[in-house]
Amino acid sequence: MSRLEIWGVEGIGEVRPGDDLAGIIAAAEPALHDGDVVVVTQKVVSKAEGRLVPIDPDDPQAHRPVIEAETVRALRRRGDLVISETRHGFVCANGGVDLSNVDRGWAALLPIDPDRSARRIRDALAARAGVRVAVIVSDTFGRPWRQGLTDVAIGCAGIAAVVNLRGTRDDRGRELAVTEVAVVDELAGAAELVMGKAAGIPVAVVRGVDGSWLRPGEVRGEIVRPAHEDLFR
Amino acid sequence: MSRLEIWGVEGIGEVRPGDDLAGIIAAAEPALHDGDVVVVTQKVVSKAEGRLVPIDPDDPQAHRPVIEAETVRALRRRGDLVISETRHGFVCANGGVDLSNVDRGWAALLPIDPDRSARRIRDALAARAGVRVAVIVSDTFGRPWRQGLTDVAIGCAGIAAVVNLRGTRDDRGRELAVTEVAVVDELAGAAELVMGKAAGIPVAVVRGVDGSWLRPGEVRGEIVRPAHEDLFR
Repeated sequence: MSRLEIWGVEGIGEVRPGDDLAGIIAAAEPALHDGDVVVVTQKVVSKAEGRLVPIDPDDPQAHRPVIEAETVRALRRRGDLVISETRHGFVCANGGVDLSNVDRGWAALLPIDPDRSARRIRDALAARAGVRVAVIVSDTFGRPWRQGLTDVAIGCAGIAAVVNLRGTRDDRGRELAVTEVAVVDELAGAAELVMGKAAGIPVAVVRGVDGSWLRPGEVRGEIVRPAHEDLFR
Repeated sequence: MSRLEIWGVEGIGEVRPGDDLAGIIAAAEPALHDGDVVVVTQKVVSKAEGRLVPIDPDDPQAHRPVIEAETVRALRRRGDLVISETRHGFVCANGGVDLSNVDRGWAALLPIDPDRSARRIRDALAARAGVRVAVIVSDTFGRPWRQGLTDVAIGCAGIAAVVNLRGTRDDRGRELAVTEVAVVDELAGAAELVMGKAAGIPVAVVRGVDGSWLRPGEVRGEIVRPAHEDLFR
């Protein structure tokens, strides 16, 4: 029987620039196993990588230029909200700039290359804990047409971002026109269910993922849709 | 520790119009517990509800009028693909009309009221198995800007569709501007990870969900964004 277990990793504590995030994760209980998928929120990855910029804490508009700098194209604007395309090709609110759970006077930016961030954590977990895991860096995005936010993958390593879950024919022998499932996004969303941002659980582990998905993968090449192929840009 | 378990319910077999879907689910192993979330794919809900229309099996374009009838507004067209708004307010490919895993000569339509479908299954599971569970009806939708499909909720019962996961302030006392998480969509996506369409597992169970989420909820009122509030319609 196909069965997944998902848990939040507690006791991670505050993460600061230069912190050894993989070392912190490797020390957590229960121990990681080969084949686990480790989902790490963008916030702690950005903090560990020092992707923080100082802003005037007394100016309520101080983050605006930071957002503009992270926006290569503004798809929509409404009031203070910008729906941005980032230089990674993500479409998200406010260029991915985050002011929550960051010290007053600072803004957190997205990692420069979240797939690379995931690879580094994965490699460091192999070195520290001797385990071969997959790593997903997640962030919380809105969606058009649907209310409520969901966590999606902005980077991954050791797992295909998109998997053909259906085979080429369904169980009636009919060819399936559409077959590609963004499993890293579904895993990022599943991980959020055990996190709860205010509870300070920035890492979750998913155990039991289909072993055939655990191969080289990346969000940039597999998930990010080129603008010229997109019906909504 | 916050921990979820997710498994696919095997042995459901073929579902036909008029079948007692709740009875089939209630008979499956392992037994359901109070507080479980049962995720059922649209395909078997539509089949059980008889939401099937005959189409000429020898005409490769026979499904086109069916798609147009299910489309109240076409947001985009490209080749044979229509990005439709359905009468439920969902935005999805081809009006939600599905030809895969359906007998040749038939097309499956979305349930008329998927929240009601979820409530009926939930009520029947209470009557048959004596359990108080939440039910989500899921479907596989594409997204703008991101490649790959994910499963989302089109109906739910016994669970809030959107939950404030963050409280009103983060752990630094800063007010959080955005706090509403579409947990039913994340649960639908998590469930797909143990399904695999071609493997014929149309039902999954999630155990361990936060009990505070298990209250009356619906996709229609909580997830479907009114067109006039949408930046991309």
